[in-house]
Amino acid sequence: MSDFILSRAFLETSAPLASLGLSEARLQADARWPWIVLIPRMAKGREIADLSAADRARLIEEITVAGRAVRAIGAALGRPVEKLNVGLLGNITPQLHAHVVGRRPDDAAWPGPVWGVGEAAAYAPEALETALRAARQSLQ
Amino acid sequence: MSDFILSRAFLETSAPLASLGLSEARLQADARWPWIVLIPRMAKGREIADLSAADRARLIEEITVAGRAVRAIGAALGRPVEKLNVGLLGNITPQLHAHVVGRRPDDAAWPGPVWGVGEAAAYAPEALETALRAARQSLQ
Repeated sequence: MSDFILSRAFLETSAPLASLGLSEARLQADARWPWIVLIPRMAKGREIADLSAADRARLIEEITVAGRAVRAIGAALGRPVEKLNVGLLGNITPQLHAHVVGRRPDDAAWPGPVWGVGEAAAYAPEALETALRAARQSLQ
Repeated sequence: MSDFILSRAFLETSAPLASLGLSEARLQADARWPWIVLIPRMAKGREIADLSAADRARLIEEITVAGRAVRAIGAALGRPVEKLNVGLLGNITPQLHAHVVGRRPDDAAWPGPVWGVGEAAAYAPEALETALRAARQSLQ
């Protein structure tokens, strides 16, 4: 795994949360939704078919764990999550990654998907600290 | 599993392909994209966290298998798939389900997501037969 390099696209749009067994977990820098991105540490590969079956099982467990952390972020920010959305697209950023997004009927895109909708909203500094703390605690 | 009932939303928008180990696999009735929907046969539950870990591992394997079938549909229709998109949303249809969609840079929504984009396009009868045959053969 030593030749894994996180794509610059993630460095510019997210903040580190935790190194899980398979994936790097990062907070998407978009205050509109509690949102975690998981990037499996593999050198190349764009599709889940490029992972081994064992790593696919680890990935869906990490997606489940990230879902709990997304709910923790929403709760900490006073906007409890009603539904999780999971997406693996990669049309723009080819490095394999999974989005785990907390949704509410009053959010900026409900009931449509979040990807490609409008512009990311910056977190206020205190809210960012709250979100990072809640997510890291949940992911421990 | 005897109390599993497929949501009417799927009956109206897709055609049966195969009963896999965990899920019903169905062809989305939208000729714009080769697209399979997997619905795990469980009585209730909206999130992957409502599945057991063993069933989650089965689900991601079935998503992988469905990805191969989506590629088979694209190839049979002369529009090879360049990227798979996987999504579990459920904002509109609550019964847990996974979308596996074949994407191309010349498709109707690239590089954005497909969900909620425009209106479904009906398959021409011959293309529908081709798609169903290719998918069922791949899923066998």
